[in-house]
Formats: sequence, C-alpha cells, structure tokens
Amino acid sequence: MVDEGRRRVVVAHVRPDVEGGRFPAKGIVGRPVRVEADLLADGHDLVTGVLEWQGPDAEGWQAVPLVEDGDDRWHAEFVPDRIGRWRFRIVGWVDRFGTFRRDWAARREAGQLTEADRAAGVALLTDLARGSDDAAAAEALRHWARTLAAAEGLEAASAVVFADELAQAVRRGDPRRFATVLDPPREVVVDPEIALVGAWYEMFPRSASPDPGRPGTLADVVARLDYVAGMGFDVLYLPPIHPIGHTRRKGRNDAPEAGPEDPGSPWAVGSEAGGHDAVDPRLGTLEDFDRLVREAAARGIRVAMDLAFQCSPDHPYVRTHPEWFRHRPDGSIRHAENPPKQYEDIYPLDFETPAWPALWQELKRVVEFWIARGIRIFRVDNPHTKPFPFWEWLIGEIKRRHPDVIFLAEAFTRPKVMYRLAQLGFSQSYTYFTWRHDAREIADYVRELTSPPVVDFFRPNFWPNTPDILARDLREGGRPAFIGRLVLAATLSASYGIYGPAFELMERQPREPGSEEYQDSEKYTVRHWDIGRADSLAPLVARINAIRRENPALADNTSVVFHPLDNPAFIAYSKHDATRSNIILVVVNLDWHRTQAGWVDVQLEAWGWPDDRRYTVHDLLTGARYAWQGRHNYVELNPDRLPAHVFRVEP
Amino acid sequence: MVDEGRRRVVVAHVRPDVEGGRFPAKGIVGRPVRVEADLLADGHDLVTGVLEWQGPDAEGWQAVPLVEDGDDRWHAEFVPDRIGRWRFRIVGWVDRFGTFRRDWAARREAGQLTEADRAAGVALLTDLARGSDDAAAAEALRHWARTLAAAEGLEAASAVVFADELAQAVRRGDPRRFATVLDPPREVVVDPEIALVGAWYEMFPRSASPDPGRPGTLADVVARLDYVAGMGFDVLYLPPIHPIGHTRRKGRNDAPEAGPEDPGSPWAVGSEAGGHDAVDPRLGTLEDFDRLVREAAARGIRVAMDLAFQCSPDHPYVRTHPEWFRHRPDGSIRHAENPPKQYEDIYPLDFETPAWPALWQELKRVVEFWIARGIRIFRVDNPHTKPFPFWEWLIGEIKRRHPDVIFLAEAFTRPKVMYRLAQLGFSQSYTYFTWRHDAREIADYVRELTSPPVVDFFRPNFWPNTPDILARDLREGGRPAFIGRLVLAATLSASYGIYGPAFELMERQPREPGSEEYQDSEKYTVRHWDIGRADSLAPLVARINAIRRENPALADNTSVVFHPLDNPAFIAYSKHDATRSNIILVVVNLDWHRTQAGWVDVQLEAWGWPDDRRYTVHDLLTGARYAWQGRHNYVELNPDRLPAHVFRVEP
Repeated sequence: MVDEGRRRVVVAHVRPDVEGGRFPAKGIVGRPVRVEADLLADGHDLVTGVLEWQGPDAEGWQAVPLVEDGDDRWHAEFVPDRIGRWRFRIVGWVDRFGTFRRDWAARREAGQLTEADRAAGVALLTDLARGSDDAAAAEALRHWARTLAAAEGLEAASAVVFADELAQAVRRGDPRRFATVLDPPREVVVDPEIALVGAWYEMFPRSASPDPGRPGTLADVVARLDYVAGMGFDVLYLPPIHPIGHTRRKGRNDAPEAGPEDPGSPWAVGSEAGGHDAVDPRLGTLEDFDRLVREAAARGIRVAMDLAFQCSPDHPYVRTHPEWFRHRPDGSIRHAENPPKQYEDIYPLDFETPAWPALWQELKRVVEFWIARGIRIFRVDNPHTKPFPFWEWLIGEIKRRHPDVIFLAEAFTRPKVMYRLAQLGFSQSYTYFTWRHDAREIADYVRELTSPPVVDFFRPNFWPNTPDILARDLREGGRPAFIGRLVLAATLSASYGIYGPAFELMERQPREPGSEEYQDSEKYTVRHWDIGRADSLAPLVARINAIRRENPALADNTSVVFHPLDNPAFIAYSKHDATRSNIILVVVNLDWHRTQAGWVDVQLEAWGWPDDRRYTVHDLLTGARYAWQGRHNYVELNPDRLPAHVFRVEP
Repeated sequence: MVDEGRRRVVVAHVRPDVEGGRFPAKGIVGRPVRVEADLLADGHDLVTGVLEWQGPDAEGWQAVPLVEDGDDRWHAEFVPDRIGRWRFRIVGWVDRFGTFRRDWAARREAGQLTEADRAAGVALLTDLARGSDDAAAAEALRHWARTLAAAEGLEAASAVVFADELAQAVRRGDPRRFATVLDPPREVVVDPEIALVGAWYEMFPRSASPDPGRPGTLADVVARLDYVAGMGFDVLYLPPIHPIGHTRRKGRNDAPEAGPEDPGSPWAVGSEAGGHDAVDPRLGTLEDFDRLVREAAARGIRVAMDLAFQCSPDHPYVRTHPEWFRHRPDGSIRHAENPPKQYEDIYPLDFETPAWPALWQELKRVVEFWIARGIRIFRVDNPHTKPFPFWEWLIGEIKRRHPDVIFLAEAFTRPKVMYRLAQLGFSQSYTYFTWRHDAREIADYVRELTSPPVVDFFRPNFWPNTPDILARDLREGGRPAFIGRLVLAATLSASYGIYGPAFELMERQPREPGSEEYQDSEKYTVRHWDIGRADSLAPLVARINAIRRENPALADNTSVVFHPLDNPAFIAYSKHDATRSNIILVVVNLDWHRTQAGWVDVQLEAWGWPDDRRYTVHDLLTGARYAWQGRHNYVELNPDRLPAHVFRVEP
C-alpha cells in the first residue's frame, strides 16, 4: 500500500464483464477470449499493459501484451485450452521507456536533442535494470545502458534508442513500477463447444413406439436413434423419464381428471415406483436408459436429461420429507397454482423451508446420480420458479467437479429474470425467438443477444416449437412457415432445437383456435407419429444440419450482420468465421403466403470487401448459383417452393 | 448467513451508479435524488421494497416504499436537506401478504375461494405478527388475523383482506423475511447548488486597472465588482494571484524571453515573494484579497481560486523541497515539456517522488489556507497532469471537513480521462462545448452529458472562450457568433462561464490565422479593456443572466429536449422545471452570416401537451410574442439583428 498514491494507471471498463465481475463470463474451449479494458493515466506519459490469465487449478499467470485500439481502449486475447473456470486480469503501468523514446523522437525531429537526453536515457535503463527481478533481463538492460552511453554522437545514440532488441529487453525486464493490477481477477467459465453449438431434438419416448397398439419405451428410442442421427442432430432431449404420479393426474388435453388409459404428464414426477432418480417402469429400466445413452453416443448424439424439480403427490419425498413442501393450516400440502390456474397433479418444492440445506443437497445428489450414468447435459424445467441462490450454488458445485456438464434454462419469463439465470450459471437459455415474427423484431432481438452486456453471459438456443408452444407462424403459415422458421433458428443461433416428430411432420392443430397448446398434446397423451410420411421435412432438416456442420460461420453468433432490404417481408443476414473465408448469407421471405421480390443492400464492408466486388452466392439448399456484384442485388422467393436462400458467399 | 439460501430477491442495476458503486454519485442539496433498481425474484410471488437513506453522520435509516415502473424496475426519491456525503440502500423482499391478496382476488374472481384460503390468510397474518419487531404493528396484525377469522362468510372475509388499514398494518409490521439489502450502501455527495448552477466570469486582475498607465490590482478588481455584478454573475474566477517567477519568464505572445516590462504567466507560480499561499505583491496583499472576497460576497458573488499545482523555478519549494521535483542526471530540475514544446518557466511537481505523502499534505495545506480565507470554489488547472489517486484523496479530505467546497476540473483532454476526474470527485468540469459547432455535434454532446452513466457523476460547465481558447466560431463569426455562443452556453448548461472582458468586448484577433491563441494574450501581457464601449455585449450578458435567474427551467440540465428542424443551420431545444410550469425554448441560427428560416417540429409530448395545443412563445430577449399552434411552427432569424430566440413557452 505504500505506493498506492503513485499508482497512476487506472484499469476500467473491462470486458467480458458480467455485473462488474460479480459473475463469471462464458467461454468455449479452444476459442479465443477477447479481453478489453480502458487504461488511463494522468499527463502525457505512455501507458502499457499485459493481459494475464491462468487455467483451472493453475498457480502462475501467462501473459500477452495489450494492444491499443485508440480512445484509451486496449485489448488482447487468450485461448483457453481446457474446460473449467479460468481467470484473467489486466496489469497496467506507465511505460517509462516508451515515453522516453517517444519524447526522444519528438526532440530529434525538432532539433532539440542534447547530451542531457542521452544521459537521461542511460539513467532510465540503469534504473529499470535495478528494479527488474529478471536477472538476465537486467543484465541486458545494463548492456543497453552502456551501449547508449558509448554511442558516438547523438545520431548513433538514436539508433540505439530505437533498436528493436532494446525494446524487447525493456519488455522483458521492465519492473512495472507502481503497476495497477485488476483485483480480484475476472473469471471465465470455459465450456465444451456443445454449450454454444448444437442441434437439439426433443421427443417423447412414450410416443416412439412403431406399434400404434402400445406406448413407446426407451428401447424404442434406441431404435429411433438412426432416424435422429440421420437428420444430423447433436443432442437428443427427453422430457422427464421418471415414474409419473397417479393422484389427480391430468387427462387428455389437460382434462382435470384422467381416464384409466391416460399416462399423465411426465412433469408430474414421482410415484411409488420412485422419484427423480428412477425410470418410469413403463419406459423401461435404468439399464435401458444406460443403453440409450451408450447407443446415442455411438452415433455422436448426447442425451439431455430434463431436471424438473417438482413432485407429484405420490413422489417418495412427500412421505420421507414432508418438510420440503408447503402446507396449508389444515396440514395438507399445497399444490402448484398460479391463480386461477391450478396444477393439482404437482407439488412444488418449498425452497423457503427451514430444511433447505438438506433439500439442496438432495437435488444435487439427483444431478450427480445422472452424471454418474453418463449425462452431461441438463435441460432445466422452469428454473425461474426456484430461488436464484439455489441455481448459483447447484451449477457452481456441479461444474466444480464436472466442468463439462452444461445446463439449459427453460425459462420463458420476464427478460431480466431470464438474463439473471444466465448470469448465475446456466450455460444456455431458451429465448423469445419463438415469438419474434417479423424482420425487425427478429433483428432487434438477435442484436440484443449478440451485443454487450448480454453476449458475455447469455447463450441462446432457438426453438421454433416446443411441446408447450405451437407458435403462431407455424399454426398459420403452413409448410413454408415450418421451413422458414427452421432456417431462421438453425442459422441465427449456433444452438437451436425442434420438438419432433411434431415439427418435421408439421403438426399444427391447436387445441382451440389461437391457442399455443397442441391438440392432443403429448404432454398428456401418447401419440404415434408416421415418421416415414412422404411430406416430412426430415430430409430438409438433415440438409440444414449438414450445412451447419460444413460451415464454421454458423458455429458462432457474434459475427451476425443484418443486410437491409427494400421489402420488409424479407430478412437477410450473414455470418462469417474469424478469417472471413467462410461466409453464409441467409435470406428468408417471412410472408409465408406470397412470392416476394426485392433488393438486398449487401453490407460488403462487414467482410472487408469493396463496393464493386463481384462474387457468387451459392444456395446450399438448392445448389443454384447466382452471380452478384456490389451491394445491390435482386432476390425473389416463392414460399411454395422454398421461402429461404441459404447462400454460401464465394469470392 | 443462515438464510442466504432463502434470500430470493435480487437487487440489481441500481441508479444513480458510478462504476458499480466504486465512486459516489452527485446530488444537490434540496433536490430529489431519484433512485432506481431492478427487484427480481423467482416464481410468481410479488416483491416489494423500500429505499432507505441517511444523511451525513446520521446513524439510522429513513425509508420510503419503492414504486414499480414495469419490467421489474422500481424507483423512489429522497431529498437530501444538508450538504455532505449521503448514503442510500435498497431493501427488497417477497411480499407475502401482497401475494396472498393478489391470489385471493384471482380465486374470488374464478369462484374458487374456500375456507382454506381464509385459514391461510389468518395463518399468514399471525406469522407476520410473530416475526415483527414492532410491538404495536404486531398487535395490529394479530387484531386483523382475528378479524379475518371472525368475518361472517367469505365475502365479509374479502372485505377484510382488501381493507386499506390491513395493508398499512402489514406495511408497518412486515418482518421482511429473508430480505435482500444492497450492501454496501451507495453514496451521494450532496453539494451546494452552485456546484450545478452558476454563471462564471473570469478576469485577470492585472488587466483591471482603469488607468492604462499602470497594471491592475486586487483593489481594481474590487472596483470592478459592480460591473461584474451588474452583468449578473455568480462566480468571479481569477487566474493565479500568486507571485510570478522571473527565471525563464515568458514574454509577450509566449516569447521565449521576457522583456523587462513583461509580467510573466500567472501560472508560473512562485518567487522569492512566496508560493501558492502568497499574493503577488504587484496585485496587493492578503488583506486586499480578503477585502475582495468580502466585497464580492456582499454582491452575491463568490470568488473562485485557481489551483495550479506547479512551480516557477523561483518557487520556495524548489529550495525547501527539491525532492518534490524531477531531476536530470546532472542534478538540474526538469522543466515542463510536451516535446517538442518546452515550458521552461514551469517546473512540474513530481508526484512519483518517494516523498509524495509530504507533498500531498502540503498541497492540502494550501487548499485549506484559502478555505480559511473564505474561498469555497477552486478551479483546478490541468488536473489531468496529476495522478488520479491524489485528487480522490485531496477532494475527499477537503470535502470531509468542508463539504460546501467545490472543485472545477480544467481538464481539456481525452474523454475517458475527463470522465474519470469527475468520477473521483471533481464537482464540475470544463467540456468540449468550446469545440462543438454544428447542431448535431452540440445535441449529441449534450445528450451524452445528460444521460446515464455520465449524468450521475459529471456536471458540465460550458465556456464559449477561455484565455487559452479563442474558439473558431468567435474568430470567424463576429458579433452574431459571440451572441449565439453565449446563448448556447448559458441555456444548455446550468453552469457556464465567459472569459472577459475579452468576451463581452468581442476580442477575436488570433495570434496567427487559425490559432486559438489570442493576439497579445493576457496570459503574458497586461491588457487594458474599455469596458464602457458602446458595442459591448455586457447589457445582453446581463439580460441572459437575468433570464437564467428568473427561469428555474434553466437551473438544471436533465430536462433538455432537442426539437428537430427542417433547416440544419438551426438548433432548437427546450428545458422545463419539474412541474413543467416553466418552459424555455431556445432557437439559435448557427449560420452567423445569413438569415435562415425554417420549421421547428416542437416535441409537445415532452411537456405532456396534445398535438393541437395553442400557446404563446415569448422572446425574453426582445419581448416579442408569437402565437404558435401544434408541432410545426415557423422561425426566421437574421444574425445581424439577433441569432437566437430565448422563448418562454406560455400555455
């Protein structure tokens, strides 16, 4: 602290930043983390600095010099090569030698150089050497001090002052007097790539039976893996596979009473057969589940588990831990409700219970149970109905021991709550994409997600449909809408998903007109899907997932650029990889009912291209190629053929 | 910490905010401090909260309920009634009774109310009473629990549930279970109004002589006070009044050598006659200074002192504290320079000296010396050439004992450095206004200054000219430019200043074409000004300062609204007071050479007015009145008459 008053450099406005360092930022293994900061000092002296970082469990710091971008802004990058929690910090100090050299140059230019300047340089180098704790660097600095002193005349001295080797010696040996260190360091949770990039497929195992005469099982899901893999999906997400309660079970189409054949909602977890660590006997056994995970992995597919932390009235916890539930004055347990809506088949856990520490530990045990069986992805049901501190603790605890585990937040709630959940640890999040219909809504939302502060903590996963949401466009737009929304989701967001086979079979019958609920929703009913139907979108889905794999531009969100058009029915955007050698340009006609035509104003500067550039746009959906030139180019899309171009832009 | 896991409410994104609470925000005594925050909780429960605040040296907290604005944003205000450092914090918790009442209403609406709901309410009120540490409130809650239990039938129970008195009892008695408290509290430095609102007049005492045969003195400044007061200024700022060095003194027009009659730059502080705590004998004595401060105060004028922490080679510190200066290897002291520019008449203080604690203490002593002589305003010369930690310490120390003292940062440097200085304590700051010429530049800059985050810490002071800056518009625009820039400065910023008599006498001869330096600058030369000249702008300055005093709309910056015009030569903007009962609309023709006409699009919604409103605009400069209606109104300004309207908008 003795030098506090002489610490002249300020390090401020660091990025990535999540709430001023309160939460870690997010990174992907093998991808650069770009760090930025303001470095400020008083007066005219030059400042300089380094970015320092360390990996999980590392002790020392690696370092790289910061580069100035102007307006006192600096940046540098590091590439985390391991999954886990990384740390970085900025060190900034006054660049005494750089300042001396700059002033020397100015004096030389003005004919003001004197021997006093040379003497000042010799003194400075000697002082740097004295302060350095790198003996070799100190010796080098002393050598340069002698060389500067001995140079014959001021022109020869200038050659010494500007020698690259001298600058290198200073870089190595500078004792960084009165340096400012960003403290505490900032953290970056580095995840596997699947946390950012993945195509998800959701399906109900009980609807996977090839035989309309019986419900599906986990074994049927295994049999359907080739179908899912054939469409090119990375993640297979299953709604809860646990035993389902029978007390106050919901019937078909959410009927308040179930008939004898109604299977109940899988989100009403738990029965005499077990709770969150059990498999519904009608679906199979734990061993069947293990086999599914294995067989999926063999096809490059990860199984995502649903974490629905709530109980049916028949869940074992209700007997063993009644203190984990909220009771009425008459002693009965309160079911879930959002008055006047009643969810009699579900008891929420009471996170305000005095026994909360035991409850937290038990839920952590559940997660670890499935991790031990090979699960690395959890889709968390309604995380916004459990306290924020619980998720921060749970995800932190789990990732401390299993840093490759990721969590998807299924929170469709208020914007700030969604963002908070992402800040406190969720690896990726459902989004409002499902309800963003027109070009401006979509572009505004994507810009928000790909700009600070959101981009530093929130990874989107775009879903055109879910079992809860038969979106308006799909209800009203028919096949073109399914294709268009699929293209949008799959190319706007590095992670996207569909709920199938309802999606590829274009299921679009609402329970009632205007409702987002499906008629005969799988949430309450076993369905049988004819996945071999001739009009299935499965081949198109496969093509789009292949395009995603073949084009690294689509494996990131931040490069997105929107290209204006003179026709608001269209949306156009591009993405490119870091080297701009792979550029994808997507144009979608959002009018699902009519052919539209217009002129796109291609933002060539985004790719570093001149305005008169000639190039080819190669439609990866149809194979067609078009010769384009410059900014203004014609597009026309007939939704009955295809409502979208997915162009690879080829120079 | 035992309840940490049950603390469900998050308090985030608090405003005012300066670097996440690292620095205090700024307030003005008697003016409301509006505090905003996000309050988030999981689930569907309602949240509620209070703003708590305490004044300087207070122990307890005062409180007011937060009000919800939507999107999880809440706000409340407090009015600091004393100068000094205030603190505030937010307390947020789950509103159990509010949630119960909301759910009761929903159930009642749906015909779902049962006796179980009444029982739950009785239990809740009893539980709130049990937790309350306000005995009277607890008794009231128990009374309401009994009343609810006793009500005959559910309709009577409803009347109890919705009774205002019950809500009040809850507000008083709610134990705020698991409340989240913003910790540490945020701080607000509450300043006297002069920190935000003031008209400044800068003049060189040595040019104040009425007798061209001798230089001016402090006594001459006293004699000129009526002139300054007559123009309506609040602050009289004097460049340094200390003894001036003679070694390497600069001559007329910055000549490297002074002639025998050249008085030297007042910023080359110190000679055998004394240093920063002395008065230049040619100007008078400390007693003369005291008299000036007294006489100014008698006219409602505060004297602002220049703090120029640098020394001439003849300053006493050079002998008594050579360790406070930077030395060359040959032992000589380094003068100030910004190569190739040389300031041989000035030795900068070396804030990197190992003796920095003694240096800091001495500079603090200097400030306290002048505070003891009645000075409450310091204009700090080049604060950006001294370390940030020094200013934070100095201003903090001074304001701890003298909270009514304010500091104006004369930093014309890079934007982030200017903002940092304001963050660490400067009460107000010089700005880039001097170089903002066209309408868009001016509007963009004012918007930046009046929006978060800048508005929470930076108070602008707009100067059309300074002794260092003969701005382009003034050089080239003649009398209309002087009038227009005066109107802009005085109405865009609650604090503004002019350097006179150069300003009101429209001095505009540069040292060389295009230079911002004045020919025969007072920095190096004694000038004699004919303040009685017939063409002086003094009467107009007086009128404008009177308008400022008479219209509270101009005593604040944040209400500013820019009104578009169809002619880019114009700028139009308005300000209003909190009740919108005082509205000032300014229109300036920025083309100083030609009459311009156009249509202003009055943003009536800013004043809560309908688009067809009829109103009068009353030009406070000319007395003319115009009947306007609605948004689109005609303006025409001939710069040779007056380039500006300063309208009072009268309904």
